[in-house]
Amino acid sequence: MTTQNRQFLLAARPQGMVKESDFTYHEAPVPTPGPGQVLIRTTYISLDPSMRGQMENRADYVAPLALGDVMRAGGTGEIVTSNHPDHPVGTLVQGTFGMQDYVVSDGHNPPFRAFDAKIHPQQALGVLGGTGMTAYFGLLDLAEPQPGQVVVISGAAGATGSVAGQIAKLKGCTVFGLAGSDDKCRWLTGELGFDGAINYKTQDVGNELDRLCPDGINIYFDNVGGEILDLCLARIADNARVVICGGISRYNQSGEIPGPKNYFNLVFRRARMEGFIVLDYAPRFPEAIQDMLGWIEQGKLKQSTTVIEGFENLPKALIQLFEGANTGKLMVKV
Amino acid sequence: MTTQNRQFLLAARPQGMVKESDFTYHEAPVPTPGPGQVLIRTTYISLDPSMRGQMENRADYVAPLALGDVMRAGGTGEIVTSNHPDHPVGTLVQGTFGMQDYVVSDGHNPPFRAFDAKIHPQQALGVLGGTGMTAYFGLLDLAEPQPGQVVVISGAAGATGSVAGQIAKLKGCTVFGLAGSDDKCRWLTGELGFDGAINYKTQDVGNELDRLCPDGINIYFDNVGGEILDLCLARIADNARVVICGGISRYNQSGEIPGPKNYFNLVFRRARMEGFIVLDYAPRFPEAIQDMLGWIEQGKLKQSTTVIEGFENLPKALIQLFEGANTGKLMVKV
Repeated sequence: MTTQNRQFLLAARPQGMVKESDFTYHEAPVPTPGPGQVLIRTTYISLDPSMRGQMENRADYVAPLALGDVMRAGGTGEIVTSNHPDHPVGTLVQGTFGMQDYVVSDGHNPPFRAFDAKIHPQQALGVLGGTGMTAYFGLLDLAEPQPGQVVVISGAAGATGSVAGQIAKLKGCTVFGLAGSDDKCRWLTGELGFDGAINYKTQDVGNELDRLCPDGINIYFDNVGGEILDLCLARIADNARVVICGGISRYNQSGEIPGPKNYFNLVFRRARMEGFIVLDYAPRFPEAIQDMLGWIEQGKLKQSTTVIEGFENLPKALIQLFEGANTGKLMVKV
Repeated sequence: MTTQNRQFLLAARPQGMVKESDFTYHEAPVPTPGPGQVLIRTTYISLDPSMRGQMENRADYVAPLALGDVMRAGGTGEIVTSNHPDHPVGTLVQGTFGMQDYVVSDGHNPPFRAFDAKIHPQQALGVLGGTGMTAYFGLLDLAEPQPGQVVVISGAAGATGSVAGQIAKLKGCTVFGLAGSDDKCRWLTGELGFDGAINYKTQDVGNELDRLCPDGINIYFDNVGGEILDLCLARIADNARVVICGGISRYNQSGEIPGPKNYFNLVFRRARMEGFIVLDYAPRFPEAIQDMLGWIEQGKLKQSTTVIEGFENLPKALIQLFEGANTGKLMVKV
């Protein structure tokens, strides 16, 4: 075991697009677990859009990050030293371990949960992790999809969108996805079974939505915000549900960001727009994971993972996330 | 009976603020009811914010208005000639009779409903009419108020807001209203029992909301849109409901109107924003009217009415509505 604990610390509150210089590489000694504690060695570290807001403490549902703190990040790991009888060495775990090789935990701080060795860490972090849970509860609890309804998903080739779309298909919906490349669009329709896809970078999104959804959109699952949210709000059907899952187009903007000018269509269409925080659903994660595992076994739910090798690439990987370089879940293999 | 049917016709699609010249005064012969029809003489004509959008056919939940059509408006009337056994002469009725002295109906086109002589036409058109129904269903069905929750209402001295606020008080909520004059604010707190009121024209709305609602807003009932919607979105509590009832600050604006830049707080606060059209609730109006009549009898629900005398003042009255000249329900006595 190495004696160094590689870390990326938050060095600056980003202005506009996150930059590598917003992080500082640091080597700390590997921490020693005290009584009742375990030492976890991270294996994969997750890159998620919400990390951008956390760098600025925009979100108050997690503790604030100070400059100099280890950057917060989800990850998988393995218990390599244990002073806790319930958590033996060799246990595979996932949790918010941060951008570092090693973390000490008593099971509560940071919290972790064990996962079975038959589950690949990439699944634990993706379809069965935060983004999968987000897709599951955002779609099923907030949007309440019914068979035959038209579902539009932005950021559809991302970790959350791609899972939300597949669940909507499982529920009998007609599903269209927006993504940023022809390759991603082909993956959505070819591999994941979406009924159609729109390349928002090259196609006229409004025209395509009109063509694909002539009777309007029953459910819009929004991961991006901005102009695409407005284009979808203009095309919602009566009693539509607009789930605000994310707003990645906003995260790297500075100053005042415009709101959805078509929000008033919620009145004409008797529709609702709703936000949520997946952490609120933590007590129900086990039921979701059971459903998801069943769908995976039946071949009805697939995960794509973009794995970047090398701890040192973490800041770059986060930037690539915002550039849309990934298909499906983006993570760094430590 | 006069032989002239005074009318105001839609003369122009308004640009910006509605103007008197957007209407043409016209005198038509009093129509003659055919078999199965009745002739209704209007007694009060309602002025409502939604009329502005109808002048431009912005709303698709009612039939479009062509230039030269009699301007659409709600009203009360009395059946003065009847060729229909179910609708005898002398029946008091309310419906969408338009800006005119007389209208012919078969009971369906335009639809009308009779009301008891013990109900004043001002009540039939107000607290028991469209604006009262809007307050009732918007607040109770969409916002689901619970005792002890904090409710903020904009346009609170208007016909809908003043009723919504009183119903929220009946349900045990703490209620704050925004209005455009000190007189209106005094009426809200003094007469209607609101817990506080903010004069948005002279006070710092954000500071006042912070002071009155230190733990956030559980329900925001929005009649105005614009900056006030944003200030309230910034202050919603967890699981808040934002009911989009109207957006009067938008109705007389031309060109692109900004959306609520703070909409993303729906995510951080796990909140929802929802619109509705009161006409969808028509089958349930009787239950609402029964509740409202009970509350009126118990002295728990009061209506203020601003009555302008004289048919010829209809266009001016509509302009005054948008200038905020009214307290409570605004109508013209024909």
